[in-house]
Amino acid sequence: MVFNPSLSINSVKVGFCCSPSTPLNCRQNVTSTSLKYVSVKGKEASRMCSLKTNTEINSNEGYICNENLRKGGESMNIVWHKCSIEKIDRQELLQQRGCVIWITGLSGSGKSTLACALARALHSRGKLTYVLDGDNVRHGLNSDLTFKQEDRAENIRRIGEVAKLFSDAGVICIASVISPYRKDRDACRSILPDGDFIEVFMDMPLHVCEARDPKGLYKLARAGKIEGFTGVDDPYEAPLNSEITIQMDGEACSSPEVMAEKVECYLDAKGYLQA
Amino acid sequence: MVFNPSLSINSVKVGFCCSPSTPLNCRQNVTSTSLKYVSVKGKEASRMCSLKTNTEINSNEGYICNENLRKGGESMNIVWHKCSIEKIDRQELLQQRGCVIWITGLSGSGKSTLACALARALHSRGKLTYVLDGDNVRHGLNSDLTFKQEDRAENIRRIGEVAKLFSDAGVICIASVISPYRKDRDACRSILPDGDFIEVFMDMPLHVCEARDPKGLYKLARAGKIEGFTGVDDPYEAPLNSEITIQMDGEACSSPEVMAEKVECYLDAKGYLQA
Repeated sequence: MVFNPSLSINSVKVGFCCSPSTPLNCRQNVTSTSLKYVSVKGKEASRMCSLKTNTEINSNEGYICNENLRKGGESMNIVWHKCSIEKIDRQELLQQRGCVIWITGLSGSGKSTLACALARALHSRGKLTYVLDGDNVRHGLNSDLTFKQEDRAENIRRIGEVAKLFSDAGVICIASVISPYRKDRDACRSILPDGDFIEVFMDMPLHVCEARDPKGLYKLARAGKIEGFTGVDDPYEAPLNSEITIQMDGEACSSPEVMAEKVECYLDAKGYLQA
Repeated sequence: MVFNPSLSINSVKVGFCCSPSTPLNCRQNVTSTSLKYVSVKGKEASRMCSLKTNTEINSNEGYICNENLRKGGESMNIVWHKCSIEKIDRQELLQQRGCVIWITGLSGSGKSTLACALARALHSRGKLTYVLDGDNVRHGLNSDLTFKQEDRAENIRRIGEVAKLFSDAGVICIASVISPYRKDRDACRSILPDGDFIEVFMDMPLHVCEARDPKGLYKLARAGKIEGFTGVDDPYEAPLNSEITIQMDGEACSSPEVMAEKVECYLDAKGYLQA
């Protein structure tokens, strides 16, 4: 195939606008485009840009004509808006702001419970959430990782990166991961826009978590059958500046709903539950 | 903290329903729960389950009371629906079905262009999409990977796993990756539910892609400055049974909109654009 554009553009940057087009009729070919000009020099520009031209593809900026195309020696500069659907468009669609709720704490501290209750509460308000569970991700994305020190850090790094992608998709991503080291959590925070990493510290006493022992892991750790278990023979570094801390209410644990409400109120106050 | 439930449940499986609750008032504590009984034995069950009990957390099934709790010797069996928000709930919210559009083809074949046009077309219909671009992911999640053979496979494996998560989130995930080997693509297909992996083959002749050379990579590969470049000194294994094939229209390339329409029509026909 040889491109033979009959019209020419000089130093042109073109793209497709993001404005909604009418639904396509799947039984007929679409020949019209949704091109929108921001600045057009040259009266033929409109017609010209619906022609097939030699184009350079740039996934971040949409289409860029890279040919020095000329029409009768007259150069034209045409600039379109950035074409692709961005985070802001998805947020508008979802009527919420993408972010990461990072729930950290000891095994048995209630991370999954809070994640689940929060997902329910937000879903009931029509908000899209997705729970990334440390354990579940190990079955898929992180199935190649062991529980050695460096692999545990890599486990958290990847969850942070995936959470970032979800946040960029406009989703309220709820990550539920022990993530015992400050350094690893802070690295996840650092890759997100300011404010979009919301750290929730499940500040539960070890003896409470150990009494629950939902997976029987404390028992195994105490028996020496698991090494490097957080809280037993490996440290948990409590957050210094978590956005939200969940603590016991005296001798009692708050209900999942009350814990979720605390996070929900924070999100509300910070404007994450609207576009 | 010691749990002293005043009421007892025997072999109980409890959970929280997914039905929408009224928006919470963030200025007052919420004491009511959104519990919904599926089967309740014992007149006190309703009151009982709003009490704090010793509960075992199971992130897949929500709450499971694991105490043998008794009330005056009377055992009660209570079963709730699975509590957590599942893919089906998110799909209902989004009015679409989560899936993976896997766009494969040579460098310069138009993968990113199609991804971008498809995202625009679907967005204009109120559908939530997310583009996973092979190059972009290498800056974040896969920044630890080289371009060696095994790392390229790992790059694709991870993109497949992340795409699966997005699909599970209810999102229409558009993955744009050269993914030259059948084995790697089929591995990504195999981890998704039947039908949810939609392979789109950009069936463009090498000379067309090379003439475009959007990133100047063919030039580098021909000059011997890049080794193992797909189409030059590394094979591209064309899909044998891709759901969709995009080809040239004679001597011309279809417009991004026409290519996107083809995929959109497929999604429509297969019911992915409704819940």
